Amino acid sequence: MDTYTPTERTQVKRLPKRGVYDQAQVHAILDEGFICHVGFVADGQPYVIPTGYARSGDQIYLHGSPASRMLRAMGQGAPLCVTVTLVDGLVLARSAFHHSINYRSVVALGQARLVTDPEEKMTALGRITNHLAPGRWEEARLPSEKEVKSTTVVALALDEVSAKVRTGPPIDDEEDYALPVWAGVVPLWIEAGEPAPDARLLEGIPAIDRRRFTSRHT
Amino acid sequence: MDTYTPTERTQVKRLPKRGVYDQAQVHAILDEGFICHVGFVADGQPYVIPTGYARSGDQIYLHGSPASRMLRAMGQGAPLCVTVTLVDGLVLARSAFHHSINYRSVVALGQARLVTDPEEKMTALGRITNHLAPGRWEEARLPSEKEVKSTTVVALALDEVSAKVRTGPPIDDEEDYALPVWAGVVPLWIEAGEPAPDARLLEGIPAIDRRRFTSRHT
Repeated sequence: MDTYTPTERTQVKRLPKRGVYDQAQVHAILDEGFICHVGFVADGQPYVIPTGYARSGDQIYLHGSPASRMLRAMGQGAPLCVTVTLVDGLVLARSAFHHSINYRSVVALGQARLVTDPEEKMTALGRITNHLAPGRWEEARLPSEKEVKSTTVVALALDEVSAKVRTGPPIDDEEDYALPVWAGVVPLWIEAGEPAPDARLLEGIPAIDRRRFTSRHT
Repeated sequence: MDTYTPTERTQVKRLPKRGVYDQAQVHAILDEGFICHVGFVADGQPYVIPTGYARSGDQIYLHGSPASRMLRAMGQGAPLCVTVTLVDGLVLARSAFHHSINYRSVVALGQARLVTDPEEKMTALGRITNHLAPGRWEEARLPSEKEVKSTTVVALALDEVSAKVRTGPPIDDEEDYALPVWAGVVPLWIEAGEPAPDARLLEGIPAIDRRRFTSRHT
């Protein structure tokens, strides 16, 4: 499959030219972000909670405490929405009305599957750890059996998915191009600063390179 | 009021020590972010959509197209969740299990009110514009009557609200402090790059200072 089939629920209706259903582009957005916002419903009320995640093939892994309201809902097959948003720039137009944001976002709908197989669970935890902090699964102490048991992992198949992308300069009304107003794009990205070592770090451990954690959203 | 009263729905149950109900802290998080994730329900399915916003006193303004599914739901009083998340750092522990994220997030629940008064609508649009791109409401062409009419604005009262905050170093299991693994925090923030002028920018318009748009999340 190279493209996701839009459904009534994932078809981008507002500004349809921004809709993207290409699998490679969807995967690239999911791989560049590292925080998703998970939506679930309890007693008719929607909740939106930020959390880490990782893509593996055509699914997303999420994890958390078995006591969490969100993980409980997900483990029981409640309908979910997982949204990942990358903000690439502020779009400054000559008119206030045409101000916008350059962004790439993915919306995935569906029901999660509780991951119970211990091997798949470890694989998923490794992917989530390395997606947040590249290379750490190979450096840190791996989870004990007790730690794995006290973590809930769920998988959401990327089935009903769409992306929405805005790029490029502001689009002003033709007559506004004559206005003496600055217009253009202010690029934005997430910057990683110098890693601050823990106060109890053992002596002799080499510093960690901040560039490992920099994703410039470009 | 100095603090929000936690309800059954907003009380932070997982890691309750991270729960914050202080109004000043909630406002500060909302003022530092500029993208929120709005959750709403349609036919039992939750949707999570990123969008701009602005705080005004003890309410949040949102705007969009009258044709948008989200704005229609909000204008009709559907239950909403508005979440704002600031990511401050990657927390690298000696164990994979204790890896975490330093963050500040706000979750606001409620039903929006459709803003119909033209004066309040203009005020709200000004706040949303200047929250995204400080100072632009004073520089750009203001919305025409037609543009205002073709924008839906809603307000969500900050009533049922909580924040969740993690700061500080990793917390490892006592025996893991002896491990020769780098541990500490990698600070993250949103960086604004050099503004890229539009190809059709008139000559003689002074460049815009990128520092106007930098929010370091510190």
